[in-house]
Amino acid sequence: MTAAGGRRSVPAMTVKLLVLYTPPEDADAFDAHYAGTHMPLVAKIPGLLRTETGLIGAAIDGGEKSFYRITELFFEDQGALQAGFGSDEGKATAADYQKIAPPGSRMFVVPVDD
Amino acid sequence: MTAAGGRRSVPAMTVKLLVLYTPPEDADAFDAHYAGTHMPLVAKIPGLLRTETGLIGAAIDGGEKSFYRITELFFEDQGALQAGFGSDEGKATAADYQKIAPPGSRMFVVPVDD
Repeated sequence: MTAAGGRRSVPAMTVKLLVLYTPPEDADAFDAHYAGTHMPLVAKIPGLLRTETGLIGAAIDGGEKSFYRITELFFEDQGALQAGFGSDEGKATAADYQKIAPPGSRMFVVPVDD
Repeated sequence: MTAAGGRRSVPAMTVKLLVLYTPPEDADAFDAHYAGTHMPLVAKIPGLLRTETGLIGAAIDGGEKSFYRITELFFEDQGALQAGFGSDEGKATAADYQKIAPPGSRMFVVPVDD
């Protein structure tokens, strides 16, 4: 499928929002907020294709365990991600992220190669 | 499906090996080694279900860009991951990782929630 319009079309590339949460001070409180409030907000973001999340287990590189949880939100392309977070639901999610994410948590946009 | 044997069975949970590469000094050399040597080694690991990889784009948290590429290797469960990296192919991949990964790169085991 090609994009409409006069510009040269490029293949759409799945994009994910990669979130790396640092360890929370109160893991129980974080987990409760994450599961009970944050992910239900995420689920409402328009254009969200799927989420993948997991607690980060062993660091097998000898380094310190600097992250607690990884969450990835998948969108069809960069435009869909931007539209999703520009929506009211996306803004509500972003506001809640500011409440839940421990200091040093990271967030990146990653175009998926394959 | 339940595990064989006398112990209480638990549901198998997809596990991924999460690798976060820090920015290489020579991105072209890294990219060539990654695509031409490293990922072909990864592809031979027994039990590997799939890989997902992408260049890390914008950091949208205001922080510095501390990672260059994310790679995730999926296995059926923890045992399959361990068996994969215990194989000759897994050991060859791990040895090549030591050559390719810039200092500060991180590697974690992540059981996937959903």
